[in-house]
Amino acid sequence: MARRTVFFVSDQTGVTAETLGHSLLTQFDSHDFDQVTLPFVDSIDKAQDVVDRINATALEQGTSPIVFSTLVQDEFREPFRRVSGLFLDFFATFLSPLERELQTASSHAVGRAHGMQDVGAYDQRIEATNFALNYDDGTRTRDYARADIVLIGVSRSGKTPTCLYLAMSYGIFAANYPLAEDELESGDLPKVLKPHRDKLFGLTIEPERLQEIRKERRSTGQYASARQVRFELRAAEALFTRYQIPYLDTTRVSIEEIASTILDRTNIERRTRRL
Amino acid sequence: MARRTVFFVSDQTGVTAETLGHSLLTQFDSHDFDQVTLPFVDSIDKAQDVVDRINATALEQGTSPIVFSTLVQDEFREPFRRVSGLFLDFFATFLSPLERELQTASSHAVGRAHGMQDVGAYDQRIEATNFALNYDDGTRTRDYARADIVLIGVSRSGKTPTCLYLAMSYGIFAANYPLAEDELESGDLPKVLKPHRDKLFGLTIEPERLQEIRKERRSTGQYASARQVRFELRAAEALFTRYQIPYLDTTRVSIEEIASTILDRTNIERRTRRL
Repeated sequence: MARRTVFFVSDQTGVTAETLGHSLLTQFDSHDFDQVTLPFVDSIDKAQDVVDRINATALEQGTSPIVFSTLVQDEFREPFRRVSGLFLDFFATFLSPLERELQTASSHAVGRAHGMQDVGAYDQRIEATNFALNYDDGTRTRDYARADIVLIGVSRSGKTPTCLYLAMSYGIFAANYPLAEDELESGDLPKVLKPHRDKLFGLTIEPERLQEIRKERRSTGQYASARQVRFELRAAEALFTRYQIPYLDTTRVSIEEIASTILDRTNIERRTRRL
Repeated sequence: MARRTVFFVSDQTGVTAETLGHSLLTQFDSHDFDQVTLPFVDSIDKAQDVVDRINATALEQGTSPIVFSTLVQDEFREPFRRVSGLFLDFFATFLSPLERELQTASSHAVGRAHGMQDVGAYDQRIEATNFALNYDDGTRTRDYARADIVLIGVSRSGKTPTCLYLAMSYGIFAANYPLAEDELESGDLPKVLKPHRDKLFGLTIEPERLQEIRKERRSTGQYASARQVRFELRAAEALFTRYQIPYLDTTRVSIEEIASTILDRTNIERRTRRL
């Protein structure tokens, strides 16, 4: 497979350059990409060092590297006129049409995204993350009033990572409650959840995949047995149906996809946006 | 302040569109943006519905919305020729130069990023997230051998969210260990940490900020007192210096910035890249 070195260059964390670059690279599965993130390039000297490094790589490998840049300030971009590689400049490309549309010059300030410019929004994310940790796995059930959403499902159906992701990315207060065997047997919604029915969202998963996941965690006993897994999942899905709780099969979907689907189906508002 | 409605349109989660759009919008602080994410636009009908919705917004508000799109397939983009707004088309803009450079047609497949195409990488992130949860706050200290990094610092210096972020974004195995009063008094590195000195990274924070954070958690007693906070921080920093542990002041930096700085200073490899 063809190889190519890719650089993500940023005057700040590099998170935006990585996310954008990665999205584009996934469209080229005929290539293998060696990926290098170069964050905090916030002076002309550092920019020049990066260009030298990229040019050295080009010379050494005999192929042009690909450079994804989110550098904002014009003077840091200047040395890249002499870069030996494909230079894809996210800001220069889209800022001009935005400036025309908004009839405003942009501030061209370094590192606005992923920083702490908006302290309120940032604190919201941290608070939401702490909430997700404190309200994980049914450890606390009082105070669900503060929750935007309560995920329910059997053990290892994807509740915890989804709650953390909703908190860290969107400042959403997400609790989760595991449906345990004895509760599933009754067929009733657990008592602590009843006052919060409008906040419940169910996660389910295919029995084969759940068995796999549980086996890695604890290979002996009931926990990962085919029979147990099948019983729990059938009972959980019956509960979701009986109480008209919206639910989602997480077998083939990533955390990001679970989170986006939940937000799309519940109309919970994103409190912060990937700062 | 001028208001504008912004739409993030995607055939998948919308994460890339949000990241791109948010980065650019932070450059225009003269405007307030009402932001709407429209994920999973994966048919021509859905694309037409989105265009109708955007056009209705334009009519109603009398201003053109801004549309950030990461739609990949040409036929889903087609209805957007008739959109009343500024249409910023991420893939159309950057795929062509990449195709030329790589001399390959891109797959134009829906939703490659943020999905589960690369199951190995995805499992890595989930495993790392579970590791961060299990090795949070010094709850487990055996098996640090598996850790890529062990963050140390006083209570509430930012260790837990940083570990979770490193895990979820980059599949990095990050444990954390709180430096407690009695350990700080001795001036010695805690015994459990000694075999792992090369994996340690310290976090510190300004006393005023730490007091604020701790007060929100527990307002009475020693925990949030000026004297206690000052003692703990001074002792922690002395420890970092004595044992030559690299460290970072987290007072004015976001989790993303802490994570990027750590990776930049330690050369720990990103195992996955923001899939």
